[in-house]
Amino acid sequence: MTKQPMQSKFSFFETELMATLLEKAQEYQGKTHPNPLVAAAIYKDNTIISYGVHKKKGSHHAEVEAILSAKGETHGASLMVTLEPCTHTGATPPCVEAIINAGIKDVIYACDDPNEQVRKQGAQEILEAHGITVRSGLLAEDAINLNQAYMYAKRNKRPYIHLKAGMSLDGKIALASGESCYITNEASRKKVHEIRAGVDAIAIGMGTLVADNPKLTVRYNLLKDQQKAPKIIVIGQQFLDKEYEIFKSGYETILATSNESTIKNQFSDVWCIPDQENPGINWDYFLNKCYENDIYSVLIEGGRNLFSDVLTAGIVNQCSFFIAPKLFGQEDAISVVTLAPVHHLADVLSLTNIKSEQLDDNIYITGFCNE
Amino acid sequence: MTKQPMQSKFSFFETELMATLLEKAQEYQGKTHPNPLVAAAIYKDNTIISYGVHKKKGSHHAEVEAILSAKGETHGASLMVTLEPCTHTGATPPCVEAIINAGIKDVIYACDDPNEQVRKQGAQEILEAHGITVRSGLLAEDAINLNQAYMYAKRNKRPYIHLKAGMSLDGKIALASGESCYITNEASRKKVHEIRAGVDAIAIGMGTLVADNPKLTVRYNLLKDQQKAPKIIVIGQQFLDKEYEIFKSGYETILATSNESTIKNQFSDVWCIPDQENPGINWDYFLNKCYENDIYSVLIEGGRNLFSDVLTAGIVNQCSFFIAPKLFGQEDAISVVTLAPVHHLADVLSLTNIKSEQLDDNIYITGFCNE
Repeated sequence: MTKQPMQSKFSFFETELMATLLEKAQEYQGKTHPNPLVAAAIYKDNTIISYGVHKKKGSHHAEVEAILSAKGETHGASLMVTLEPCTHTGATPPCVEAIINAGIKDVIYACDDPNEQVRKQGAQEILEAHGITVRSGLLAEDAINLNQAYMYAKRNKRPYIHLKAGMSLDGKIALASGESCYITNEASRKKVHEIRAGVDAIAIGMGTLVADNPKLTVRYNLLKDQQKAPKIIVIGQQFLDKEYEIFKSGYETILATSNESTIKNQFSDVWCIPDQENPGINWDYFLNKCYENDIYSVLIEGGRNLFSDVLTAGIVNQCSFFIAPKLFGQEDAISVVTLAPVHHLADVLSLTNIKSEQLDDNIYITGFCNE
Repeated sequence: MTKQPMQSKFSFFETELMATLLEKAQEYQGKTHPNPLVAAAIYKDNTIISYGVHKKKGSHHAEVEAILSAKGETHGASLMVTLEPCTHTGATPPCVEAIINAGIKDVIYACDDPNEQVRKQGAQEILEAHGITVRSGLLAEDAINLNQAYMYAKRNKRPYIHLKAGMSLDGKIALASGESCYITNEASRKKVHEIRAGVDAIAIGMGTLVADNPKLTVRYNLLKDQQKAPKIIVIGQQFLDKEYEIFKSGYETILATSNESTIKNQFSDVWCIPDQENPGINWDYFLNKCYENDIYSVLIEGGRNLFSDVLTAGIVNQCSFFIAPKLFGQEDAISVVTLAPVHHLADVLSLTNIKSEQLDDNIYITGFCNE
């Protein structure tokens, strides 16, 4: 049998419209948390009737926005949306209900919603039971990438963990004296702030808090109007109460500690995380605690001990390194990580799907840990 | 006084022709050593009469090739050449004499020849004394880059030193066990062989010879017909006579040692280099020995001790790192360099004019040491 070329189940108009919707959704980056970015449109005979975008938690979902904006012109029309319509009552009633009531005749969505509430009964089943044609998968990969952390977190019930370090060519993050400001250049620092602006939380170890007293704010005006700042999580024991910079930003601060006697001090919250034999803190518990608190992505910013612990625990999804063209060469300078001995190169920790970019005289390298 | 825009002293035809000559010269890359790559042309009324390229030591210089190929049509013609014509008798008589005798009326060359024989009396002075118009500087930078090592070596009376290391993200070149094959990927290794094909010598420390027993040959068919293979220099004491791979390639091998009692064994040559208090071998003596032997560029390939010694001695011009996306993290793994302690980040060894390139999942970073 001769294989026929597969005909796309989506028209050029539909593909173009989905691309437009992904762009419209993207405009609300950082503002919809803990909800995903979603945009929708109502159209008939290749003519747009209305658009709708989800703007923030508690506001209308994109589908309802689009239906309301269509001013009654929804009967027999089509609806396109970047994410599977919700089927449950959350802060708002389910979107499938609104779609059915609006007399929509067919629905296209880009990708499934891994939210467990939605997964109990998928949108396709409900809509089709009401005689609505449903197609999905149009630009699905782009739609998944649009809400990378949300998708990852909802699927795995834990946040996406991104480790970031600024270091020398020989993998040193500080001199023996602790001096580390600034190994990397302005262009690298700006990119770090871009990454910070895209995560729900930034985590550092107690040692880094005490030694570096970092601000951990998002600078360069990268936080948009109404965008929530990332939470700051300090992980460790023996908190030494001082006037740390992290308390001056107004950002929510969390102390994650296994020291039950810890008092809250200036932190917004304290999470008591039970200890685990090796490598210390119970990371499953920590990840779950993040997820329960709607933290879908965490940027780990240092120091060596925390880097080493999370890599050893195997909970890191992505590592990003900003490499300055310097050679420290001091044996007592602080290395980016300390890991258990391995006896063969094949057993060394390797990153995959490497991407790199030169930032003036620094090199940015990002890669992913095997899961 | 209003500044007038400077009129270029070269026409479009002349600029195009020089670019063509630089390409023609480049074709003999690796074959003219210890002479530079040079090409020339004779032309009249914007019409090319003949070309000439220097093909190997002892053959005609490019200018003479062009004059001979012009079959008598040189009277009143112009001559263009990528390098200042020679003014001294070497393996061949001086080119300025041939140019004068051919009745050439004007000469354009790209850049001066730093060769001290030529510098005793420049070509311009001699040619102008014979009524020949001389212009220079056309695409000079490209012409200098064409013979980078030759230019550097002739100017500084020492070879250009290029350090190359393959390492992990955290700057490790081998496990504690010494295992280092292969940290980097195939694409990186191919680029290493390209670099090898372009140098006059490859140097390693005695420790690397014994531990890794490398071939150090130029593979991937990168050595062209008639191209001389790089010499292999082993630096160190206490040579342990064994059937090393370097002796199997037919490449010239040199032992550079301060151990006067060393016997030649299988080496093609032994250089006795006096010791120096710190950092060991007398590097000035070594560099001079290379220069005397027409070695204008040396690629230092390892190991850590040699890297550290040459960096500490301040004799390195360029460093290239091939970084694999791996994290060793073992404190006992072998770091790329060990340098003296510094107390401030400002005092750390920094590279400049960084260039980088992603080679599959490896990153190639090259930079220059301040001089």
